[in-house]
Amino acid sequence: MAACLFCKIIRGEIPALKLFESELTLAFLDIGPLSKGHSLIIPKHHGAKLHDIPDDQLAEVLSVTKKIAIAQGVQDYNILQNNGRVAHQVVDHVHFHLIPKPNESEGLGITWPTKEADKGELQKLLEEIKAKM
Amino acid sequence: MAACLFCKIIRGEIPALKLFESELTLAFLDIGPLSKGHSLIIPKHHGAKLHDIPDDQLAEVLSVTKKIAIAQGVQDYNILQNNGRVAHQVVDHVHFHLIPKPNESEGLGITWPTKEADKGELQKLLEEIKAKM
Repeated sequence: MAACLFCKIIRGEIPALKLFESELTLAFLDIGPLSKGHSLIIPKHHGAKLHDIPDDQLAEVLSVTKKIAIAQGVQDYNILQNNGRVAHQVVDHVHFHLIPKPNESEGLGITWPTKEADKGELQKLLEEIKAKM
Repeated sequence: MAACLFCKIIRGEIPALKLFESELTLAFLDIGPLSKGHSLIIPKHHGAKLHDIPDDQLAEVLSVTKKIAIAQGVQDYNILQNNGRVAHQVVDHVHFHLIPKPNESEGLGITWPTKEADKGELQKLLEEIKAKM
């Protein structure tokens, strides 16, 4: 936590363009934006991945994200939260990106390599996951 | 709402591979998965975009998403919620994708066309957004 970039921002050791702050949540503009208004919404609780954060520490994340989207007046946007290097996570403190998508070229670029799914395999997977929930 | 694909699933008019259901929230396997375990978590409240959904109707979304990630035992994954056709939204009922990222080729493909941001412009934008919050 001492070395975590976002914990340093939370502690005020590094400046940030803060949009919102409460006991649980901090939101600020991304300084390397994909589009105008690209914002980060983070729980103050330190954890690298979503499943590391207690539910109560995530309670405000979506309402703050909504609040920023509404204040910006954006209609088209992506909400993205990455877990792990292979999944494009760079800072190991959970963060939700709010990325306006004003046109095809700006904002988040997505490729969607859908696979044919075997119905029987999906049903088997469903039972496997449900057994662990 | 009558014609909404996800509302039909909620009403039981179309089958789905349901992982979780409560009063507010439904989760099911995506039948056109980007990777094994690709799941959708939706508020039952109908609305096309995130900013259309009341906060209280979103209360369980992240905890259910976490629950499914933990049950799957995935470490690397993306959470994605798209708003608008240009942002890759296909079904006009808010849905959060949980997409495991087992390797570079499977799962969500992301391109990240970062722009140089002018510090003065970011500061101006910050004030504009904050004035509307």
